[in-house]
Amino acid sequence: MNEGISLEELQLAARNHGMPLEALRYAITPVGLHYLLIHYDVPVVEPESWRLSVRGERELVLDLDELRARPAVELAVTMECAGNGRAKLEPRPVSQPWLLEAVGTARWRGTPLRPLLEEAGMGDAVEVLFTGLDRGVEGGEEQAFQRALPLEDALRDEVLLAYEMNGAPLPPQHGFPLRLVVPGWYGMTNVKWLERIELLDEPFAGFQNVMGYRLRQTEDEEGDPLSRMQPRSLLIPPGIPEFMTRDRTASAGQVLLQGRAWSGIAPVDAVEVSADGGVTWAPAELEPEGEPWAWRGWSFRWTAEPGEHVLCSRARDEAGNEQPAEPPWNLGGYANNAVQTVRVTVTG
Amino acid sequence: MNEGISLEELQLAARNHGMPLEALRYAITPVGLHYLLIHYDVPVVEPESWRLSVRGERELVLDLDELRARPAVELAVTMECAGNGRAKLEPRPVSQPWLLEAVGTARWRGTPLRPLLEEAGMGDAVEVLFTGLDRGVEGGEEQAFQRALPLEDALRDEVLLAYEMNGAPLPPQHGFPLRLVVPGWYGMTNVKWLERIELLDEPFAGFQNVMGYRLRQTEDEEGDPLSRMQPRSLLIPPGIPEFMTRDRTASAGQVLLQGRAWSGIAPVDAVEVSADGGVTWAPAELEPEGEPWAWRGWSFRWTAEPGEHVLCSRARDEAGNEQPAEPPWNLGGYANNAVQTVRVTVTG
Repeated sequence: MNEGISLEELQLAARNHGMPLEALRYAITPVGLHYLLIHYDVPVVEPESWRLSVRGERELVLDLDELRARPAVELAVTMECAGNGRAKLEPRPVSQPWLLEAVGTARWRGTPLRPLLEEAGMGDAVEVLFTGLDRGVEGGEEQAFQRALPLEDALRDEVLLAYEMNGAPLPPQHGFPLRLVVPGWYGMTNVKWLERIELLDEPFAGFQNVMGYRLRQTEDEEGDPLSRMQPRSLLIPPGIPEFMTRDRTASAGQVLLQGRAWSGIAPVDAVEVSADGGVTWAPAELEPEGEPWAWRGWSFRWTAEPGEHVLCSRARDEAGNEQPAEPPWNLGGYANNAVQTVRVTVTG
Repeated sequence: MNEGISLEELQLAARNHGMPLEALRYAITPVGLHYLLIHYDVPVVEPESWRLSVRGERELVLDLDELRARPAVELAVTMECAGNGRAKLEPRPVSQPWLLEAVGTARWRGTPLRPLLEEAGMGDAVEVLFTGLDRGVEGGEEQAFQRALPLEDALRDEVLLAYEMNGAPLPPQHGFPLRLVVPGWYGMTNVKWLERIELLDEPFAGFQNVMGYRLRQTEDEEGDPLSRMQPRSLLIPPGIPEFMTRDRTASAGQVLLQGRAWSGIAPVDAVEVSADGGVTWAPAELEPEGEPWAWRGWSFRWTAEPGEHVLCSRARDEAGNEQPAEPPWNLGGYANNAVQTVRVTVTG
């Protein structure tokens, strides 16, 4: 492992949090167990005076009741932070130090974005910019959290402006009163506390598109923007944990390993499990395909023999993408979908 | 500061999480923003087959409907982890590395404990032992999370077996279906996922009472058990944060500083604020006294001049306890209620 985590990294880890991996047992992650990353502060929002502005060839201004009166869609969506796995990279890029837990699946209910863009008039727009109410300083610039999406991605049917999570109004920390949900994309896309949507004739040159969330090896490189989630599978660590080390102990015999797998690129079509640290692999049993943007459950009957074992699982999607054994390194520490390893001591 | 945080500490920080300090704006902390510490894993609980056993001179066995049919009380209770502030100690005791955020206030609804103990028959009991369904290894011993309370503390009117948090069934991570709530005491007292309550004729010698959660300077010392929360005040960091450092920037002029203060020993009767790192202090305005076990809001009108400032607040309770400037050190890193400091750059 790397040198120790700094105080600054710890400050972020104390505020933001992952999903404890035993919560993989829930197809829909309960609020409070879903991962959370907030760049700045949760902003103060007064729902009565809050309005959404949508600016194209004309400006639409909508309050929450008007948004709720529009056609509604509810989708189960798996969302993962682009920085998940960052703290496992060497050298470790310094930012929110995620291990493996920056993921969750929620039922998001909201109104489709496309009709609103059409009503505002798209003209020659090439991108759609989403601005949240959260303000801070990043890369030396004072800014609201803002991120733009190429027009063709913003127009996809599954893109929502969500006002409910798991059947209740959005909690403050998940973007109350309204957030963008772009199924299949990494978390930074899903702008929280939305106040403004703008159709842009030129690509947006703001921090979160041009500096942050790009795959690059050096500061000089332009790099490619992060977009869709790479495939990943995680398993529920079996047995019981040691408080401090989180090392696992399980009893010998039949152990039902369970986990979930997802990819933002194409449906998951295979999960394999290894009990020897990735030397040999065997197929897991996939649950029936569920909703298209949610993770897919799997299980594997493991005959646990006394001794030390290293459990792994890996996902493959229909586009042929598969998790690597070793993490791909990049400057921002993004999209590390290397295979999880879980050490287990099996007692006789 | 200390040497870097270890991978093991980071693993705990990624699972457990504090309350982002801007959430001090809520008198009742929304679920998901309340702090959370789970020693082992969130256990699997089937509510239909779950039963609570209460064992005194006789055994009572109750299901959730029977508990909900008993007299109900709802209390707003501020709860803080005994390890809050641990990561600010030097040398740093190695455990969950809390900075300042391990706190929250919820509305807990449940049935008073005392009548159940009386129905079970207390005989010559001296302590009451609470056992949760969560299992793990700690101090080399496999165990369920178990903690005992002296009988006289267990019999207090405000001690509840809670099945609701903020008007909804307990979330899994806060102890579904039932947890103990002992207002005024540090978090470890409030055993989650309760399955068994036992009246004991001898003091309990289990890990969480005898080894953990004691104030001591060395391993050899017996030490005193943690019980009630020491006074503490926290303020909402003003202005806006830098993403990575969390350093604050605010504009010159009138700034309304706000925070909340609590003590488990006696009601808070004074909060003072300093804008010069604790050299000079001025009284904050306290909100009217609210519910007896919940924190008390306060505000302070600060005239922010351009430059660098260090904001602090400190609470005093009616018993005369006051927050220290320097943290008290102990082996477990408990009860560090030293004054918070918030650095702010004020721009003209």
